[in-house]
Amino acid sequence: MTQGRFIALEGGEGVGKSTQGRMLADALRARGLEVVTTREPGGTTGAEAIRAMLLSTEGEGWGARAEALLFAAARADHVDKLIRPAIARGAWVVCDRFVDSSRAYQGGGGGLTDDEIMALHTIGSAGLLPDLTLLLTVEPEVATERLSLRDGDSADRIGGRDAAYHRRVAEAFMRFAQAEPGRFAVIEAGGTPDDVHAGVIGSLAGLLS
Amino acid sequence: MTQGRFIALEGGEGVGKSTQGRMLADALRARGLEVVTTREPGGTTGAEAIRAMLLSTEGEGWGARAEALLFAAARADHVDKLIRPAIARGAWVVCDRFVDSSRAYQGGGGGLTDDEIMALHTIGSAGLLPDLTLLLTVEPEVATERLSLRDGDSADRIGGRDAAYHRRVAEAFMRFAQAEPGRFAVIEAGGTPDDVHAGVIGSLAGLLS
Repeated sequence: MTQGRFIALEGGEGVGKSTQGRMLADALRARGLEVVTTREPGGTTGAEAIRAMLLSTEGEGWGARAEALLFAAARADHVDKLIRPAIARGAWVVCDRFVDSSRAYQGGGGGLTDDEIMALHTIGSAGLLPDLTLLLTVEPEVATERLSLRDGDSADRIGGRDAAYHRRVAEAFMRFAQAEPGRFAVIEAGGTPDDVHAGVIGSLAGLLS
Repeated sequence: MTQGRFIALEGGEGVGKSTQGRMLADALRARGLEVVTTREPGGTTGAEAIRAMLLSTEGEGWGARAEALLFAAARADHVDKLIRPAIARGAWVVCDRFVDSSRAYQGGGGGLTDDEIMALHTIGSAGLLPDLTLLLTVEPEVATERLSLRDGDSADRIGGRDAAYHRRVAEAFMRFAQAEPGRFAVIEAGGTPDDVHAGVIGSLAGLLS
């Protein structure tokens, strides 16, 4: 049995996480590995139900603390029922967003401290961290252009947030990467999908050998 | 403006919390106080949606950790949008179950430590505790008899759990009360509703004076 691995893709919106996740999964499968692609929030029946609740605009909306607890609950279900079993049987899990997205979006600017976000993750999921977190970064104008090519819904949702917000999120991700250089690979993702994919595969050399 | 107060009713199923909550609310209103009656999990639009998700039997069910996070998320919404505003404007909040139910049901036997449950409550709701927690206790056979008089659904749901489970929950509540005698009033609830109500009012003397 091969060694199971857990790879997360992180970064702001429009950096190309979904595209790179698909390309990575294909490349791993071409090497004969079992690959499970998933995303957060979501990935299991329960976590997808929580995702729908988080995105619902009914009612008065969620406060920062209830929201952080809901993300942690979704992650606990996802880790318990999908991620840990897949790693245990030797699969590679490629996950679009994981706990670092909670740290970047709900922590800091979202009103919770990083220690609080990590405490929720410790209680909910025994603090599971990816073997490698691929942080994709692009210049803000590249992300904006990519988002403008998406369907109107996504563009509107993102357009409602200001540039300062997106800069804060990008800076938070970069701080996490600098604090844990062994867990992160920072990949400049402004080039073509093939160029970025080559960077992704290069960063995985240690795990693939 | 009167001083807002937060009263929780706790205890196993069949001890008479709902009946005593209604009688207490009526008695407080008769004294000219604004009273908000509520329950957990639930009490707000968001928390009731989480309640429905917790009680749903779709999917594979929730693990202990996801469940504890969902209860804490529901409580955070409830505290933020209903309980704190009511107390702040001088109302009395009478709540059927609060964090001690999470401690008794999800803590210990449920697989989480009491420290973990309280950490979730600290992060979610700044650790808000009731001014007084009325712990209603009855002999196990009284609870069983009262539950048998309810609709079949409740009786079935309870009947599916064994006596040892109910004893563990009752013992947990009693430990909490013994550890914080100033926050709890233990009320023997085996008598008539009027007798028990008299005990409830007696235990509130300090807050009502």
